[in-house]
Order: sequence, then C-alpha cells, then structure tokens
Amino acid sequence: MKVLIVYAHHEPRSFNAALLERSLAVLASEGHETKVSDLYAMGFNPVATGADFHERRFPERLQYDREQKHAVAHEAFSPDIAREIEKLVWCDMLILQFPLWWFSVPAILKGWLDRVLVSGVAYGNGRRYDTGGLKGRRAMVVTSTAAYATMCEPGGLVGELDVVLWPLQNGTLAYTGFEVLPPVVAYSVNFVDDATREGYVAGYEERLRRLATTRPLDFHALADFGPDWRLKPEVAPRAVGQMRSGVTL
Amino acid sequence: MKVLIVYAHHEPRSFNAALLERSLAVLASEGHETKVSDLYAMGFNPVATGADFHERRFPERLQYDREQKHAVAHEAFSPDIAREIEKLVWCDMLILQFPLWWFSVPAILKGWLDRVLVSGVAYGNGRRYDTGGLKGRRAMVVTSTAAYATMCEPGGLVGELDVVLWPLQNGTLAYTGFEVLPPVVAYSVNFVDDATREGYVAGYEERLRRLATTRPLDFHALADFGPDWRLKPEVAPRAVGQMRSGVTL
Repeated sequence: MKVLIVYAHHEPRSFNAALLERSLAVLASEGHETKVSDLYAMGFNPVATGADFHERRFPERLQYDREQKHAVAHEAFSPDIAREIEKLVWCDMLILQFPLWWFSVPAILKGWLDRVLVSGVAYGNGRRYDTGGLKGRRAMVVTSTAAYATMCEPGGLVGELDVVLWPLQNGTLAYTGFEVLPPVVAYSVNFVDDATREGYVAGYEERLRRLATTRPLDFHALADFGPDWRLKPEVAPRAVGQMRSGVTL
Repeated sequence: MKVLIVYAHHEPRSFNAALLERSLAVLASEGHETKVSDLYAMGFNPVATGADFHERRFPERLQYDREQKHAVAHEAFSPDIAREIEKLVWCDMLILQFPLWWFSVPAILKGWLDRVLVSGVAYGNGRRYDTGGLKGRRAMVVTSTAAYATMCEPGGLVGELDVVLWPLQNGTLAYTGFEVLPPVVAYSVNFVDDATREGYVAGYEERLRRLATTRPLDFHALADFGPDWRLKPEVAPRAVGQMRSGVTL
C-alpha cells in the first residue's frame, strides 16, 4: 500500500515522534511505500485565505469552497496545497497522527483538513460517504491523550470515544469516502509507566501489520438516507451520530 | 454583561460578518460591554510552539500544557496569548462565532482554543466542568453551515448536532467551567433565500436579548462521576456523550 502519514506534533523528543519512527520502520518491513507530511517540521500554514488560490473565480468576495472547486479545474492552488493534494490522491491509506487537544486535532492539522480536503477532489457534486471523492482508500486516526481510557467509555467523564471522534471520523474521513479503521489511542500517555507505553507501541505495530485486512468502522452509506437526508424508516441506525439520544438542545 | 466575541471568518462581505455587526449593535442596545477578537483581522497565529513562552521550565523538551502552567505563574506568555487570556478572564460571556468547517471550528479558531485556554487558568489541578477555571461564565456557539437542518437531526446524514458539537461544547467549553447555552445555527446559509437569512438574524437577536436568562445545556457535574471517572451507578446519563450507544469501536 501507499501510506501517507500526516503528523502533527511540536516536539521531536516526544512519545509521538518515537511512535512515528517505529511506524515507518514497520511499514517499510511490510513492503509499504510511505510519505510523511510532518506539519510542524514543514512550517505548514493552517489558515485558509484568498492567498490559497493564484487565480480567483470570485475575486470580489471569498467563497472558499467554490474557489477550491474552481482551483481544481484551473490548477490554481498555492504550491503548498497542491503538493499535499498530490500526496493525498497518491495514497491508498491515510494515517492522521496527533495528540488530542481539546478532544480534537491540533490547529495545524485542522488547517491541513480545511485547506487540503478540497471541494472537487475530496467531495462535491453530491459525492460523499461511500460515493466520496477519496473512496477506495482507507484512513486511521492515531492519537495520544492525557485522558484515562475509562473517561472515554460510555458514561465516562469526557464521553464515548466514538462521540468525541465523530466530527473527524464520520464528518471528515467517512464523508470524503475513506473506509475508517478503528482508531489507535494511547491513553494517559504522560502518566503511565514505560511498560504500558511499550504496549501502546506494540499494539500500534500489530495494527500496522493488518492495515489491509482490518474491518473498518460502520458508517452509513449514502443510499441509507432518504430525500430529507434522514435515515430511511427501514434502516436501523448503526452509528452513534444517527441514534436518537433523547437529548433536546 | 461583559461579552467577548471570538470571531473567525475570512471574508468581510459575508453573512457571518453581517451577523457580527448586528450582534454588536444589539449587545450595545442591551447595555452590555463588548470586546471582539477578530482572528483573521488580527492575523492570529494558531500554531502552538515553544515560542509561545518567553521563559521555559523545561527548555530541553516542549511539554505544552506544563509550560502553560509555568507561564501562568511567571507571566511568561507571548504577548498575543497574554492579551487573549486577559480578554477571556475579563468576560462574563464568551461567544464563538465561525463557519462550521469539517463539522468543527476553522483552524484559526482551533488555535485560539489550543493557545488561550491555558492550563492553570481554564483548568488544572483537577478543576474541570462545574469546578473549571472559568466557572461563573457563560458561553455560546454561533455557527453557519452548508448542511440542511434535517441532516443534523437524529438519524440525519451528518449526525445529531449535539454529537457534532460535543468536543467543543462538552469537551472544551463545559470542561473549562462555562455554562453552555444552546447553539445558534444558520443552516444551509448559502442556499436559502433572503427572508430565511433575515430569520436567522432575527433569531440570533432574540437569543442575544436573553443571554443572562437562557437555560444552559445539561452537562454532568464532576460529582456525578466516581473514582473511575465513570458516572456513578445511581446517576442517569443525561448528555449524549455519556449515553451507551451500543456501538462498538
């Protein structure tokens, strides 16, 4: 497989950096090709602006997603975005590796999603979920957190992991067509002993060896929804975001 | 009330910009004091690095949250962060206004959360949720999205709104002690007619007039959780993240 790792950590002497290094060794030994976008090392700019396009369809008022679509057709992306789109389209497998900050990705990685998953490539013209622009590819979240595992269980302090990761795993990765593999999480990474940390590394290695065969998470296909964009009455909700919670906002 | 609006939109001629302008007029007419952090206009840097501290406790290896804690005690934050913390502590009411990108905040706003909600002020030493560092304050999400309202209902294509916003409303705002008011959402804002858009503005104005009296969303208090950080057996789960979904990752 061709594996793209988008990596967002600020410290080369971190657990995450060690994990990245080991993952590259394992992927090589399994015969996979790899590319890494090390966002901090690249000084990646995460802020979406009009400067992201060297030609504009609507120069008077920035409509970011419409300019993305135009830029796809006219090769009008700034070089940093064009390079990342090239890697994205190249890969069969996308790994997002990052520390969980505020139960989401660090800003530098959010900016990669905002600027690189462009309309006209990743989605557009109704293509999303199993018809998304990046279908045929797999993706996986690899993250570390100060939270304990029990905090991310049903009834846990910060909520179920699949709720916490819903905007990323469903709203972003599944939305653009990826098959999303179960996430790899190193819990309370600053507070555990070396043996536990080694266990996290070993667990990740094992997951890397089964990239092609691991069963993806179950998100709904586009055909499961009716013209009102709600699940058809005959379809039982399977993913957490589509279940009725009983909570009224 | 003292109202801080953190605003993240790239285009001054947008619906969001018009909404911001109207909100400032309404807040003034209601006798509230306001400050705005217009992140794009400020050229706010969203990327957390070691340069965020002009003195380091651990210069050899960046541990971001531990340096935040140290910087609080030693006034060691870079000026851009120090200014934002000052506004944050000043306010009684925090409004985050942004377009929903990938079902989350734009990178520039994520970076504001990453860099400004610092350990030692917003949380730390076990202070979180109803004991969070910012308790006594209220917060509200104001957002626009291309998604239709029915897509964000239970069974909807992108999932329930309270699941989509869980990492932000529970994991960030409630976590740091805010009472979180129900979100204000302008759905499918690019596709609706002017009357509908005017309705969104009017609805927001009405919400702004009831800032002090609106009933906040119901998140669990810290005392609802046992020593394993799971809800005590006698506490019924009320918020979506703490409910058993039946989904296995």
